[in-house]
Amino acid sequence: MKPLADYLVVDFSQFLSGPSAGLRLADLGARVIKIERPETGDICRHLYTSNVIMNGESSVFHAINRNKESFTADLKHGHDREQVWELLKQADVVMHNYRPGVMERLGFDYEAVKAVNPTVVYGEISGYGGEGPWSGKPGQDLLLQSLTGLTWLTGNAGGPVPMGLSIIDMLAGTHLAQGILACLVRRTIKDEGALVQVSMMQSAYDLQFEAVTTYYYDGQLPQRSEKNNAHAYLGAPYGVYKTANGFMALAMGSIPQLGQLLKCEELLSYTDVASAFHQRDEIKAILAAHLQTDSTESWLNVLQPADIWCAEVLNWEELMQQEGFKVLDMIQEVTMQDGFKYRTTRCPIRIDGEVFTSVKGSPKLGQDTAAILDELKAKQ
Amino acid sequence: MKPLADYLVVDFSQFLSGPSAGLRLADLGARVIKIERPETGDICRHLYTSNVIMNGESSVFHAINRNKESFTADLKHGHDREQVWELLKQADVVMHNYRPGVMERLGFDYEAVKAVNPTVVYGEISGYGGEGPWSGKPGQDLLLQSLTGLTWLTGNAGGPVPMGLSIIDMLAGTHLAQGILACLVRRTIKDEGALVQVSMMQSAYDLQFEAVTTYYYDGQLPQRSEKNNAHAYLGAPYGVYKTANGFMALAMGSIPQLGQLLKCEELLSYTDVASAFHQRDEIKAILAAHLQTDSTESWLNVLQPADIWCAEVLNWEELMQQEGFKVLDMIQEVTMQDGFKYRTTRCPIRIDGEVFTSVKGSPKLGQDTAAILDELKAKQ
Repeated sequence: MKPLADYLVVDFSQFLSGPSAGLRLADLGARVIKIERPETGDICRHLYTSNVIMNGESSVFHAINRNKESFTADLKHGHDREQVWELLKQADVVMHNYRPGVMERLGFDYEAVKAVNPTVVYGEISGYGGEGPWSGKPGQDLLLQSLTGLTWLTGNAGGPVPMGLSIIDMLAGTHLAQGILACLVRRTIKDEGALVQVSMMQSAYDLQFEAVTTYYYDGQLPQRSEKNNAHAYLGAPYGVYKTANGFMALAMGSIPQLGQLLKCEELLSYTDVASAFHQRDEIKAILAAHLQTDSTESWLNVLQPADIWCAEVLNWEELMQQEGFKVLDMIQEVTMQDGFKYRTTRCPIRIDGEVFTSVKGSPKLGQDTAAILDELKAKQ
Repeated sequence: MKPLADYLVVDFSQFLSGPSAGLRLADLGARVIKIERPETGDICRHLYTSNVIMNGESSVFHAINRNKESFTADLKHGHDREQVWELLKQADVVMHNYRPGVMERLGFDYEAVKAVNPTVVYGEISGYGGEGPWSGKPGQDLLLQSLTGLTWLTGNAGGPVPMGLSIIDMLAGTHLAQGILACLVRRTIKDEGALVQVSMMQSAYDLQFEAVTTYYYDGQLPQRSEKNNAHAYLGAPYGVYKTANGFMALAMGSIPQLGQLLKCEELLSYTDVASAFHQRDEIKAILAAHLQTDSTESWLNVLQPADIWCAEVLNWEELMQQEGFKVLDMIQEVTMQDGFKYRTTRCPIRIDGEVFTSVKGSPKLGQDTAAILDELKAKQ
């Protein structure tokens, strides 16, 4: 049995961060009901500007909202509000990611929900925390990456490079799920609810915790290497290199040993361990030139038997052909109410040997409203 | 009270992924005892090749192991093994991140621990899952980023660019913590233990779930823009741009509206919404040239009042001077047993309005062994 079976999550959140937390709770067995505004619904349904539309809505919405239900309600309308209150009374978890103050104005904030549901675990994600001059700013992933120093850690020395995914949204989502789960543990023991708050700002900062701790001690901003950078605090060879027919990654390894294995004489003289960091640009330049003289496979065939940490660089097409990938069975096909099928990822957590999947695709806007209202009526 | 107060975690893990899960459980109130081999301990104590050594050990070790205890034991030695078994009998959670098969050979695998502690929640992180031709490969962050297609999403069109942080280690750690917490919820209700397994491979793939879902439908590999790329599936202006005195980020926004606000006539003709994606390279080139003609502040002063999603790009030095950062109080000072103090991040999750901190720094190797043995004796 999935560990959160019988738990009810009422989720007001939109876009990516909140819904990614709801997704994980759904993966783990909870019933997740999205509360969406009539007609438009979660803004994420139409978020992408790319040309990939799946069954009338954005692919990111389908990815992030598999295995959830949709209940439409106008949160400013008396009748709809009453229905939402009936759901909130029964919820184990309530979540949202509105800007600070919005739920207070709507009257669905923690204090209000707690008044009718004293042991509710109530989670919220903000962009920048509830206080200070930034609290009203838009909590958008790229802006958070840019403000928190993250973009200064990726790419080579020079300008900032953003990570090509909404990494902060997803990380804030995992933190919210962690906090909610910890409070559900406490609730089952002590029968008390909780308010769990995370912000994208704090999640972005926490992601950098090792580098930030080093910076506080060192007092110097980290410098990325001129070329082939992959981590500002790591020496050569750490990075991705072009070969004669592709790219390969090299993590840690002794420079003279690499010189011997790769038959690259110039590297043999870097016998001082400290030089791997202090002379990393020089070493990386030598490596980069040398590795272009032969194929990825040739280099790996020499390095891997010597237990040097290295790997080929693959794109998805190449990855998905690998036996090492296929055996993990990480894709599932889900089906929407109207029969539309699509393939997407599954829960990355395996419990008691079981891979957690679900056949349910993302909900059409409001598809579950009537059935949920019937259920509520039956309980009264 | 912290939600995991009174929980005991016995943690065999090393490096980053496992210890980052232990850190979060410690943040949330659990007592985390690291089991380390005598003399060398967690390899992470000496991981970095940079020149920043804090109190004799690597800064990353200090960041990731704050608020934990250290117990030394030789897992192949009879007497030490007996002591470890005494701890395992009392543990609520046991964790490790050895390669598949190692704990089985040592005799501390889930089945063995479960035999003496039937309701234990046992968590493990592997690099590539327990099966298939890759299962014995080294589970190192850069290699996982390279193999899973992640490096093809960051940076501009052309070669792969790794993210400048050990993002997969940390993500696998958050997934392990989620799985453990969900099973602790179930354990308090149903009094049953669990085996929770995650792998860096599956976490790296899960991180790309929105893009991968799009790819499965579309059948085409995503293309990053030629310049100013920040997300392969998003159109212009999404990206980071150089200005006359720094850099700024621009997320979503109508191109003609941007043209008007920025007084950039060339943008006014892109009235077709689809052009933001299809002609993004052209649009980004125009924007990139135009934004270099004035300062970041000037542009933000025009765009922010119009509710365009934009931000300045900051490094840590600049970030930490901002009031919006200071008000979040994200830094804590911790103290090691020998009096060495350092500043590091705190738990990013706030519960019931409380910011969770702890004054305890990382443990010296084996510093708690004697006290823990005394405790065990007192309980017998």
